[in-house]
Amino acid sequence: MLTTHPFDDDKLREECGVFGVYGAEGAAAMTALGLHALQHRGQEAAGITTFDGKTFHSHRAEGHVAGNFDSEHVIARLPGTVAAGHVRYSTTGDTALRNVQPLFAELVSGGFAVAHNGNISNATKLRRELVRRGSIFQSTSDTETIIHLVATSTYRTLLDRFIDALKQLEGAYSLICLTPEGMLACRDPLGIRPLVLGRLNDAYILASETVALDVVGATFLRSIEPGELVVINERGLRSLRPFESFRPRPCIFEHVYFSRPDSIVDGSSVYQVRKRIGQQLAIESPIDADIVVPVPDSGTPAAIGYAQQSGIPFELGIIRSHYVGRTFIQPGDQIRNLGVKLKHNANRALIDGKRIVLIDDSIVRGTTSIKIMQMLRDAGAAEVHMRIASPPTRHSCFYGVDTPERAKLLAAQMDVERMREFIKVDSLAFLSIDGLYKALGEEGRDDAAPQHCDACFTGDYPTRLTDQEEIEQPDQLSMLGERRAI
Amino acid sequence: MLTTHPFDDDKLREECGVFGVYGAEGAAAMTALGLHALQHRGQEAAGITTFDGKTFHSHRAEGHVAGNFDSEHVIARLPGTVAAGHVRYSTTGDTALRNVQPLFAELVSGGFAVAHNGNISNATKLRRELVRRGSIFQSTSDTETIIHLVATSTYRTLLDRFIDALKQLEGAYSLICLTPEGMLACRDPLGIRPLVLGRLNDAYILASETVALDVVGATFLRSIEPGELVVINERGLRSLRPFESFRPRPCIFEHVYFSRPDSIVDGSSVYQVRKRIGQQLAIESPIDADIVVPVPDSGTPAAIGYAQQSGIPFELGIIRSHYVGRTFIQPGDQIRNLGVKLKHNANRALIDGKRIVLIDDSIVRGTTSIKIMQMLRDAGAAEVHMRIASPPTRHSCFYGVDTPERAKLLAAQMDVERMREFIKVDSLAFLSIDGLYKALGEEGRDDAAPQHCDACFTGDYPTRLTDQEEIEQPDQLSMLGERRAI
Amino acid sequence: MLTTHPFDDDKLREECGVFGVYGAEGAAAMTALGLHALQHRGQEAAGITTFDGKTFHSHRAEGHVAGNFDSEHVIARLPGTVAAGHVRYSTTGDTALRNVQPLFAELVSGGFAVAHNGNISNATKLRRELVRRGSIFQSTSDTETIIHLVATSTYRTLLDRFIDALKQLEGAYSLICLTPEGMLACRDPLGIRPLVLGRLNDAYILASETVALDVVGATFLRSIEPGELVVINERGLRSLRPFESFRPRPCIFEHVYFSRPDSIVDGSSVYQVRKRIGQQLAIESPIDADIVVPVPDSGTPAAIGYAQQSGIPFELGIIRSHYVGRTFIQPGDQIRNLGVKLKHNANRALIDGKRIVLIDDSIVRGTTSIKIMQMLRDAGAAEVHMRIASPPTRHSCFYGVDTPERAKLLAAQMDVERMREFIKVDSLAFLSIDGLYKALGEEGRDDAAPQHCDACFTGDYPTRLTDQEEIEQPDQLSMLGERRAI
Amino acid sequence: MLTTHPFDDDKLREECGVFGVYGAEGAAAMTALGLHALQHRGQEAAGITTFDGKTFHSHRAEGHVAGNFDSEHVIARLPGTVAAGHVRYSTTGDTALRNVQPLFAELVSGGFAVAHNGNISNATKLRRELVRRGSIFQSTSDTETIIHLVATSTYRTLLDRFIDALKQLEGAYSLICLTPEGMLACRDPLGIRPLVLGRLNDAYILASETVALDVVGATFLRSIEPGELVVINERGLRSLRPFESFRPRPCIFEHVYFSRPDSIVDGSSVYQVRKRIGQQLAIESPIDADIVVPVPDSGTPAAIGYAQQSGIPFELGIIRSHYVGRTFIQPGDQIRNLGVKLKHNANRALIDGKRIVLIDDSIVRGTTSIKIMQMLRDAGAAEVHMRIASPPTRHSCFYGVDTPERAKLLAAQMDVERMREFIKVDSLAFLSIDGLYKALGEEGRDDAAPQHCDACFTGDYPTRLTDQEEIEQPDQLSMLGERRAI
Repeated sequence: MLTTHPFDDDKLREECGVFGVYGAEGAAAMTALGLHALQHRGQEAAGITTFDGKTFHSHRAEGHVAGNFDSEHVIARLPGTVAAGHVRYSTTGDTALRNVQPLFAELVSGGFAVAHNGNISNATKLRRELVRRGSIFQSTSDTETIIHLVATSTYRTLLDRFIDALKQLEGAYSLICLTPEGMLACRDPLGIRPLVLGRLNDAYILASETVALDVVGATFLRSIEPGELVVINERGLRSLRPFESFRPRPCIFEHVYFSRPDSIVDGSSVYQVRKRIGQQLAIESPIDADIVVPVPDSGTPAAIGYAQQSGIPFELGIIRSHYVGRTFIQPGDQIRNLGVKLKHNANRALIDGKRIVLIDDSIVRGTTSIKIMQMLRDAGAAEVHMRIASPPTRHSCFYGVDTPERAKLLAAQMDVERMREFIKVDSLAFLSIDGLYKALGEEGRDDAAPQHCDACFTGDYPTRLTDQEEIEQPDQLSMLGERRAI
Repeated sequence: MLTTHPFDDDKLREECGVFGVYGAEGAAAMTALGLHALQHRGQEAAGITTFDGKTFHSHRAEGHVAGNFDSEHVIARLPGTVAAGHVRYSTTGDTALRNVQPLFAELVSGGFAVAHNGNISNATKLRRELVRRGSIFQSTSDTETIIHLVATSTYRTLLDRFIDALKQLEGAYSLICLTPEGMLACRDPLGIRPLVLGRLNDAYILASETVALDVVGATFLRSIEPGELVVINERGLRSLRPFESFRPRPCIFEHVYFSRPDSIVDGSSVYQVRKRIGQQLAIESPIDADIVVPVPDSGTPAAIGYAQQSGIPFELGIIRSHYVGRTFIQPGDQIRNLGVKLKHNANRALIDGKRIVLIDDSIVRGTTSIKIMQMLRDAGAAEVHMRIASPPTRHSCFYGVDTPERAKLLAAQMDVERMREFIKVDSLAFLSIDGLYKALGEEGRDDAAPQHCDACFTGDYPTRLTDQEEIEQPDQLSMLGERRAI
Repeated sequence: MLTTHPFDDDKLREECGVFGVYGAEGAAAMTALGLHALQHRGQEAAGITTFDGKTFHSHRAEGHVAGNFDSEHVIARLPGTVAAGHVRYSTTGDTALRNVQPLFAELVSGGFAVAHNGNISNATKLRRELVRRGSIFQSTSDTETIIHLVATSTYRTLLDRFIDALKQLEGAYSLICLTPEGMLACRDPLGIRPLVLGRLNDAYILASETVALDVVGATFLRSIEPGELVVINERGLRSLRPFESFRPRPCIFEHVYFSRPDSIVDGSSVYQVRKRIGQQLAIESPIDADIVVPVPDSGTPAAIGYAQQSGIPFELGIIRSHYVGRTFIQPGDQIRNLGVKLKHNANRALIDGKRIVLIDDSIVRGTTSIKIMQMLRDAGAAEVHMRIASPPTRHSCFYGVDTPERAKLLAAQMDVERMREFIKVDSLAFLSIDGLYKALGEEGRDDAAPQHCDACFTGDYPTRLTDQEEIEQPDQLSMLGERRAI
Repeated sequence: MLTTHPFDDDKLREECGVFGVYGAEGAAAMTALGLHALQHRGQEAAGITTFDGKTFHSHRAEGHVAGNFDSEHVIARLPGTVAAGHVRYSTTGDTALRNVQPLFAELVSGGFAVAHNGNISNATKLRRELVRRGSIFQSTSDTETIIHLVATSTYRTLLDRFIDALKQLEGAYSLICLTPEGMLACRDPLGIRPLVLGRLNDAYILASETVALDVVGATFLRSIEPGELVVINERGLRSLRPFESFRPRPCIFEHVYFSRPDSIVDGSSVYQVRKRIGQQLAIESPIDADIVVPVPDSGTPAAIGYAQQSGIPFELGIIRSHYVGRTFIQPGDQIRNLGVKLKHNANRALIDGKRIVLIDDSIVRGTTSIKIMQMLRDAGAAEVHMRIASPPTRHSCFYGVDTPERAKLLAAQMDVERMREFIKVDSLAFLSIDGLYKALGEEGRDDAAPQHCDACFTGDYPTRLTDQEEIEQPDQLSMLGERRAI
């Protein structure tokens, strides 16, 4: 079982990717491919549920998609032309297998499977009410709350029960559900997490990112819109708008780091946005230097943009290993920065004596930045000027992203000059918040009605944070202290 | 993972054993020992849940107790002085891990774990109602019905909710439940399945059989009585009688085969009863022969009784292997009765030329009897007179015993003379039903008010069989056809 | 992987069983069955090598035959009509897989596989010479010495090389070898370890015990004689006598404990010999008592013999569990004799108040005897008279049997009366050495030319013990201190 | 177990990397790190052997270094200050564990462990002679031949025996050996495979590439020279020259593809050489285009060089997945080029409508090139001009590199124009052989005395190929047809 995160520990982590197929032979095999293409969105566990017209079939496993879902044996046990899949990096709920999605329940309407990207910010409160009325939870996942709300809804039809459940939710959710009556997919009213729609012959495909459409050969049709609910069944696709209207605020960090550079997110090429970020960064924070070096691979597109804008050559000054592994035993005191060297190594012959512009996508706790700097100094770098392709990350995310508690965020503790001293670089600059919006094609941030959720940079959360408020008044929550046994 | 049944395939199989500890250090380790001593009651899976005063801990696994619960690592993860354990051979519910008991749920009253020996004969009907009202089942086990009935009960206290649930059940159940308020244990009003109470210093021990008390060094106090509910908490043990009064009818087959010979079941030594069965059989069906040979090990006590009564020497004419394993590939046509030889081998030097009284405990489908006979003939037996230590098994059991469907029971298909021809023995005789009751110390069966459940011999079922009646009118049960996904 | 010994720890342990087939379809499947029937001779590892006329195929594994050799997958990878198999409890050589037999080497004559029961008592000396001349050993097994002697022999034909090798060996060996030129099987000049020959249609079968012939349906032809070498190839079976003549001295302990009761060893039924041992014991050491109780299962035949001779009833006063497992965590101080209870439990209802004759096959260190006694006392036994079905075990075995070092043998430390006090029985008696020979049909032991190897009782070893002598002069053996890496 | 090659199937594959430590605490942990940094040289298996002054310890496993050698448990079982390690992609010898290096034998001089990068081109002939004289081989690896030559050498000292063995070898070998007398390391007289020497405090480090020195914090001292034998023991490092003098011919493909870009190979920075290759390619084969796109990651440095030389922008037109996995089940006919998409995806928003210079390091069979081309066409590329950073690969390698048989090499089958048609690119050009030497700082290839082994491009093999000659006259080799069991 391989679950190691290939990206650095010192990153915000998107915690989920979802994928769905309606109406294709080999739906499970297709979903496995789609999930593999979304693996960067969640490496701890994966699951696929299929429906063959009569029966639901499910396989869930800890670890990567490859290794768990690439055997004929596993795929053969997942028959049907309808499938939903999920990759997961846990935010709420512990890592046990019972929390691996899609979650499934047998309702009076028949089977119901759900794959969820996002986080329900009032899940704890809803759960407490449901338990009080006799519901028994199988998992510690916030997603299960949705199923119990559907199960106990007093509406008559499954669709009405589902809408009834959604209306009680607060937070971020892109959902794909399988039911005997068809596939239900929706995006929360603010559209915080992405969800796209594609077509492959007669089949509909849903995915967190367009790269998953590419891998199965599907055509990208459009994004599911914030607040949109689509019902796909044998009569085709029907779009509903069950919520009152909001100004959408999709997550801006998808463009900075979460999404793959070859994806199209809400209409923009991620690679082009990141290059424009690098260009904007070169305009905002120019410097005289010999080479532009990315922290690979997340800093690479912005570094190319910076190099093109500034005319300073782009070079691979840090080589990234293709092999994961960070738990090696340290043989003695003599090895500095062991962890970073397992993943990144200075290209010493290039670095020695050079003035370097070092590009990274963001700084979270700063633990890796300080080690990479030391590695470059050890390799003989004359100067290092660090340029960060986003504003300072100062606030936690409660919408399905793994962030350290606020106190651990470097930018929540110190200003830029103190960060520069801490990391020991010759100069340090972040992209401005308006610069980030410009790279996305806006004129700047509309502070009155922001175009994106940028709470990690601004602290401006677009929804209530009910559970979070209760945690800050923790006296009522004793029941949560009891941990559910396996 | 070892799950092979060491007894023969052609046996009725008890499907569960339960064990509980209240108030002892090392409760989990003690429960592991107790379950090991009850392993003959269920070899497919085992589980232990403990409560440490704050939190419930659980480990469940497919396979034997040894191998799953004998490591320090596993036991260390099960802290607390209160524990319940379960061994299982599946009757209802498929073999997936989620059906392995103790089942657990987080109720509004806190954690609730249940270990169940028996079978609820109206579980399907109750489940359908619960789903209709919004309950979501985690397993396909009949036992989960009990938890949902408790969860959704409108009574106020946990004890009242539990009694409310029990009153809706029909069938056989010996239950051990862990709650934050103490341990609850009960036996159904007819006392179909056994449950005994022991004491070890200050701790109370509950178990399906006294042999599990022996292994942990506990003193046997008494059987839990049919219809009795005991509550054990820090204030001690309290006995309740929540049901109206019935004449008890404990399972008679526990004495014939299920229980270990060194157990005391409802006041009788199983070994002594089996020896008296053999003596009674010698009285009812005497024969002139050279040696008395048991089919080991289940026929051995009755064979000793037969030999002592008849004066014919007891000899080990069939040697049983200590090593399980029945799935060996057959190398060619030349090997007759491969399966039986892996387990039993004729002691050829002894058998050759002898007139044999062959003692077995029961005949279910007759598949093994016919092979053992052939093996004895091949070894040179002059005559074989088969004597069966119970009446003909003619009816299925619906109270927690794995029986073939009725049509596969040999005694449901033919009379004794045709069975004799089928098995190819020189003579064949079964114990009479009155003879069986005599071996148990009765004057005979009281047909007006039978002292035991003997439905497998007589077809006289002591409860309604609600689900069974519906299966025989199957039109309403379409929902059950859908198999729950993992 | 299951390797736990189901017999008691306090036993001498035969360390190997061998099985061979020449000329049968499904030779590997047949060998798997044969090894399963010989499992009591070695539970730590098993292996099968086959030859398909061109290529050798081999599968070796730690653990039982069942579980490792009962899958179609494994058997399908072992094609050919010729096979040799081995079960092993390690005496020399550590437990690594490379020591699991059959060992195989590619010689100039082609492949050469060997399965060995016994122990070469000058293996260390031979090995040292071979290494000096450039041989590289793959294993730490004494058996590999044989292969290197064949490989480096200067004789021309394979048969002459094999005989050249055998003549340099000292100790006990029953060997089955596969070569491209046919199967070679032999028994050392004293015939210390057994080897029998059977026939199944056109095929020849070789096995350590006749019970392995039974399981595959083969006819027992005869024992391979001490000092006999048989060559089996497409021209049939040829018997050679390469050694000068010795008086055979087969191991007497095969009759006491090692062999299965349903085997014929060197012409005698093991079950009948053990019953006669019990009768002889009743004659030599009578006692007034209520019941005769065996320590099951090894004491059972002798107990039946004792009961028949004495007229005291045979009863199952100790019940043996069918489930292995001895490593359970002890929950606290209160449990006496945990290990013994996992395997044996007193049949309390029977034992209480009785005067008991307790029959066991032998006493090695006495550790189990003392616990069983305590268990019987706890169950209320009035008197316990222990009768042992062999003479006191006072010397170690160097011929392929796992014995404790001499100082740990109870009978090497104390006389019978002190043993009685130590075990805390009311009386204790062993069979006399002459009584043992009588049970085998002799008039008594011929001290001038003993009919058996009985060194464990008498210290009269039938061969030199070259390596043992060197260990007692350990200065020359520094190289052995270095442990071979994997 | 993860063994999937993260690079493309259509590459030549270096089959081994070696690493050694003499004189450091934590030698095994250090070796694990070094091997992890050399993982690109062999992904199928890894092994480490240590020597603690008395005893050798070894752990070998199939799969990656991470996962097998990153646990405290494993490292703790490898004590000592001296260690040798090996990563392996099999060329000769099958994939069984017994072929995983370091190989070990107990010689008369004590333990002897060897880790080998390269291939002995007369190993089969040497093996046959050794078997004839009685040597028994444990593996099918050519490396074992070296050990038997040492074992059977008639010289007196271990060093003389080792030199005696080396002198009989033909082919490529960089060796690290552990003996009780110290570490022996050498490089064959032509220095075909690399080996470098480093220093970390008092310890000496040996490794296939300098990147492995970087990861443990060691200083790079120098390359071991072709034909040099170093002996490292407590008295320090001693350099010997046991061979007559040859003109060195180190492998040129290390610079093209095998070595990591951050390594220094025989004095040159691999990254800088690859950039110069790209520049040379732009000079030799210019083209008018919009963007330069590498096939990542092996084509990236050359693409940067090409872009800098030509002034055409460098862009990430193909995105590489960080997640391995190529065995996914194909869901249906609709998915073109499934395998390539799992690893590479076109950056569609960038590619669409563009004229592209596509840079790859080499073409082996052409199977991947054709798929990548199709992928770029599907993404809307207007023109694709392929430029290959090496000459056409026309000959197999017999010196430790996995190459297809010659007939499968695309450049052995067709000329450049036909290759262009086959791959369906608008233009195709390879680097010239002189251009490659120029990028290495030479004036061009010295055809009279070539500075490198470039046989894969030129067919000019620097040694005899004895075994290969025999395979082309295969009548004498029947014995090899027999496959060794296990």
